[in-house]
Amino acid sequence: MDVLVLFGSGSDMAVGEEIKKIFDKFDVSYEIRIASAHRTPAKVRDLVASAEKRGTRVIIAGAGMSAHLAGVVASETLLPVIGIPIDSGPLKGIDALYSTVNMPGGVPVATVSIGKAGGKNAALLCLRILAITDAGVRAKLAGHREDMAREVEEADRRQARG
Amino acid sequence: MDVLVLFGSGSDMAVGEEIKKIFDKFDVSYEIRIASAHRTPAKVRDLVASAEKRGTRVIIAGAGMSAHLAGVVASETLLPVIGIPIDSGPLKGIDALYSTVNMPGGVPVATVSIGKAGGKNAALLCLRILAITDAGVRAKLAGHREDMAREVEEADRRQARG
Amino acid sequence: MDVLVLFGSGSDMAVGEEIKKIFDKFDVSYEIRIASAHRTPAKVRDLVASAEKRGTRVIIAGAGMSAHLAGVVASETLLPVIGIPIDSGPLKGIDALYSTVNMPGGVPVATVSIGKAGGKNAALLCLRILAITDAGVRAKLAGHREDMAREVEEADRRQARG
Amino acid sequence: MDVLVLFGSGSDMAVGEEIKKIFDKFDVSYEIRIASAHRTPAKVRDLVASAEKRGTRVIIAGAGMSAHLAGVVASETLLPVIGIPIDSGPLKGIDALYSTVNMPGGVPVATVSIGKAGGKNAALLCLRILAITDAGVRAKLAGHREDMAREVEEADRRQARG
Amino acid sequence: MDVLVLFGSGSDMAVGEEIKKIFDKFDVSYEIRIASAHRTPAKVRDLVASAEKRGTRVIIAGAGMSAHLAGVVASETLLPVIGIPIDSGPLKGIDALYSTVNMPGGVPVATVSIGKAGGKNAALLCLRILAITDAGVRAKLAGHREDMAREVEEADRRQARG
Amino acid sequence: MDVLVLFGSGSDMAVGEEIKKIFDKFDVSYEIRIASAHRTPAKVRDLVASAEKRGTRVIIAGAGMSAHLAGVVASETLLPVIGIPIDSGPLKGIDALYSTVNMPGGVPVATVSIGKAGGKNAALLCLRILAITDAGVRAKLAGHREDMAREVEEADRRQARG
Amino acid sequence: MDVLVLFGSGSDMAVGEEIKKIFDKFDVSYEIRIASAHRTPAKVRDLVASAEKRGTRVIIAGAGMSAHLAGVVASETLLPVIGIPIDSGPLKGIDALYSTVNMPGGVPVATVSIGKAGGKNAALLCLRILAITDAGVRAKLAGHREDMAREVEEADRRQARG
Amino acid sequence: MDVLVLFGSGSDMAVGEEIKKIFDKFDVSYEIRIASAHRTPAKVRDLVASAEKRGTRVIIAGAGMSAHLAGVVASETLLPVIGIPIDSGPLKGIDALYSTVNMPGGVPVATVSIGKAGGKNAALLCLRILAITDAGVRAKLAGHREDMAREVEEADRRQARG
Repeated sequence: MDVLVLFGSGSDMAVGEEIKKIFDKFDVSYEIRIASAHRTPAKVRDLVASAEKRGTRVIIAGAGMSAHLAGVVASETLLPVIGIPIDSGPLKGIDALYSTVNMPGGVPVATVSIGKAGGKNAALLCLRILAITDAGVRAKLAGHREDMAREVEEADRRQARG
Repeated sequence: MDVLVLFGSGSDMAVGEEIKKIFDKFDVSYEIRIASAHRTPAKVRDLVASAEKRGTRVIIAGAGMSAHLAGVVASETLLPVIGIPIDSGPLKGIDALYSTVNMPGGVPVATVSIGKAGGKNAALLCLRILAITDAGVRAKLAGHREDMAREVEEADRRQARG
Repeated sequence: MDVLVLFGSGSDMAVGEEIKKIFDKFDVSYEIRIASAHRTPAKVRDLVASAEKRGTRVIIAGAGMSAHLAGVVASETLLPVIGIPIDSGPLKGIDALYSTVNMPGGVPVATVSIGKAGGKNAALLCLRILAITDAGVRAKLAGHREDMAREVEEADRRQARG
Repeated sequence: MDVLVLFGSGSDMAVGEEIKKIFDKFDVSYEIRIASAHRTPAKVRDLVASAEKRGTRVIIAGAGMSAHLAGVVASETLLPVIGIPIDSGPLKGIDALYSTVNMPGGVPVATVSIGKAGGKNAALLCLRILAITDAGVRAKLAGHREDMAREVEEADRRQARG
Repeated sequence: MDVLVLFGSGSDMAVGEEIKKIFDKFDVSYEIRIASAHRTPAKVRDLVASAEKRGTRVIIAGAGMSAHLAGVVASETLLPVIGIPIDSGPLKGIDALYSTVNMPGGVPVATVSIGKAGGKNAALLCLRILAITDAGVRAKLAGHREDMAREVEEADRRQARG
Repeated sequence: MDVLVLFGSGSDMAVGEEIKKIFDKFDVSYEIRIASAHRTPAKVRDLVASAEKRGTRVIIAGAGMSAHLAGVVASETLLPVIGIPIDSGPLKGIDALYSTVNMPGGVPVATVSIGKAGGKNAALLCLRILAITDAGVRAKLAGHREDMAREVEEADRRQARG
Repeated sequence: MDVLVLFGSGSDMAVGEEIKKIFDKFDVSYEIRIASAHRTPAKVRDLVASAEKRGTRVIIAGAGMSAHLAGVVASETLLPVIGIPIDSGPLKGIDALYSTVNMPGGVPVATVSIGKAGGKNAALLCLRILAITDAGVRAKLAGHREDMAREVEEADRRQARG
Repeated sequence: MDVLVLFGSGSDMAVGEEIKKIFDKFDVSYEIRIASAHRTPAKVRDLVASAEKRGTRVIIAGAGMSAHLAGVVASETLLPVIGIPIDSGPLKGIDALYSTVNMPGGVPVATVSIGKAGGKNAALLCLRILAITDAGVRAKLAGHREDMAREVEEADRRQARG
């Protein structure tokens, strides 16, 4: 399994769907699991340890509010950890952003955009990391970049026609 | 030991001094320890487990930035956990406040003021909790309240004299 | 009565329901009352004074906007006071959070999450405090923690099945 | 005594000096007192009640952090209450601003600028209120406005000369 | 006319309704006008000048976004000016709050709560000001305070019955 | 005179110096004046009217706190108005930014960076506007762009040498 | 073509409509194009270069979230660039505002209001710039200002009739 | 060269020093360059293109204010890009954080902590990425983690001795 994806709650799965779409298209071997840094801390540690044993290369962790999941995972592994701040609760993800990104020096979390855009960008950042040593992934990423450009072109044309 | 006090870094000890002053005056049995949720997660768990065995009744945890310490402690114990957001780093404690207070439903952290005032209030909140079943502490708290009122009175008089 | 729960307005009762659910499940003796720090300050003081006489051990206070209720209660009693910032009004609870948590040194308020999650966590924090000297409550809290873990496990399984 | 001025702490007196300067220049009868909504709530109520008896027309209240003083005063009197949010503590007065201004409907606080500018503006707002029925104060206010304009003119000239 | 009420836009009239309800109940002589500091600056000045001639005692000004209306009015008159920050636009009134409240020293605006609660509180603050020299208004305000207390009592009873 | 530069207070002249340096280098005919939207509103209007008569093409306005100056100027003229939010006061320019930029639809202010960088950028934006029809200014702007690039190159080399 | 209008995404066209309405009414020659600073950076540069060749005088650029579009355009041209921060995503345009306005000294972006009001104001700011040397546009702007004033007058009358 | 490190300005080199210290200790082949997304956009593109040719595996980009550097780099390469928001300017890095992290879906930036802690964490995140396929780096990272733990232990002991 190349990538372990963790979410702190079942209600975060709208963000998870963004990851699924991309990883399925790129044929990445991954697993999405739900485990809470606060409600099931031991399970989080077990999943991280078992992922390391199974050769996982990157871990993605998404959580809302006092989002500690990515930081907790980063403290248990030396793999790169990507954190997605999720916009649940009244503060709309500002709390999750600050909790995820502003880690004290020593334990980094690679934080991406808040919410759904973050799900998409977490998957793409992960692919960029895998692509360093995997030319196949890199080629697919180049294709994806062309697709994005084409979508912008189409939106531009649609707009022009009014 | 009645109270375990944890700080995420040695640089947080200015806040720790506020706690010391109060606990020493109240004859509380306590221990201040430094342990980082991110750099020494196992040490945090060990300190919490050992504190529980030694009959600790309340845990205070102070940390800055993506302050996960109080939340991590609260996920490892059923004791009441008091969190102090510390104003280190460029966001001046807003990050630590959001990371500490806005815990998802299920694992509470009793958050107090940011920084030094938070150190003082963490100690006093802890004493209010101990005072529920300890008339001696309650009497001292009443005395402390009178001292505070007297200080305000004196400031008022000093101000009047200009 | 073990716990007095105060809300500043009838419109805060969605948060109150979260507390009811937990306290009823834990057989806590409690009373939920509505009293406003600004519109009925004397009533707030009376409720606090009468709660103290009836042996109340913890007071929970929830309010929105310039949320002064918890601070006002904390200034009238030496019992531990738990404050819930409520997300009413255009600032979505940021105002209530700052008003509740950032108390000047000397009068602590144990602040929990904003809004509904705060209702849940206020009740659970209160139970952790009562559990210090009540093994029955502690056992129930341990059971509750297992229930939460089970719910996460189920969400994890549901997610796996897609 | 026309105006009662309250501050929550002796450390707020830099703001108080701004008020003194203006009131002394305008020959307003006033009294500056220090009383804390949290540390001496009864004293706050006593000062308000006694001010009402002495014919006070406006109350000014300045406090920092979870600044409850103005709101608490406004709940104890029907006189107009002017609140000054003071920039003490790490949040630099944002907390005091939200705590002072965003009062629930029913109990108004006339909030002015944060910090020293707020001290000045609280005094001038108070004078505008007194001037409604006092032509002498109004004439002095008009003079003060001319002085301010002259100062701007002078700064403009100084700037022109480089 | 005792009170001039200005709004920057017709879309602010939901806040205006809160003022109407209170002023009609209190028999205040007032006028609500729409005039924009930016789109009709001369009209704003004319309304202020004419209000002064008609013996107006207080001016209320509500606006959203870069809310300059209250500040502009305050710079044109020596009457007390009450500012209501309105929560229109994506920033939900934070922009209007900062624009209204944080006036440089010299020209005060008495700022009240954001949005509808601000409408209510602007009217009540205005009445407190008028009540300084009008015992009739003061008596009605005392009655209003009792009504508010009664409403809280009723909400408390309703809540108790579940 | 091509450009009128207004500041709300003499204390804003550190920002004014940034403008001077650039305009002097570009041989722009300009005048820096101090006039306050709140303390000298008529003077602001007079300066704007007289600038229009003297053929001014762009007005720059810088102010701090509830920065109304740029908006007030924009409501009095149809010339393009550039607003500089100045970081005076405890909110460090956030208040001035919101007050300057978030103008209701109909009266635009071209807002630039907060503080000193804003002074520089206001001057350069003004030059870009003048350059539309002035090839000489455009050529100098191209030269300035090259200078900036050279400075970056030099910093790069200095850094390389350590 | 006088004005090039760029949006970072097809979903920003609600803001684009505000621009269309005004430019069509003013007979400005313009083109609205969609091009993303991140997904199609080369296309952005091409559009800017080609606009310069076609005699474009002003470029408007609108984008949400980490809105880099206006800054990127400003780094590629010496024409005045107007930036519209768009309120897409959970941060409601605060992110786009900071990304657009707070440009380091040297490369200015003329930032207008967030969202729809920003679309309107970008168009009107652009017209003010064009009007410097185009008396026809200036006359139409004066007419537009009168229309706005009339709308306010009508809202005022409508309000008066209740 | 394994890692290209870009800063938008020479004044960001305090953050650069944190990276140097770690990379020198880990024997990473890297280059620190200064290039501004706004003042030297072509240089940024050249450095990225040349880095790709030289086999660079990760790019780190640090910038303050409207920090566009990391996003611009990410739009020009498919390598993983790590962004450091730098706390220059009056907003203390909040602007840089939002500009760096909240990228629209499609072009990810791996954002780390604000300022100096971010420099350290950018280097360590980069090493975690390189360690995926480099057992030597991984071993050194494990050693670094032990060093960090030892430092915490020592701080704990020092604290205990008072």
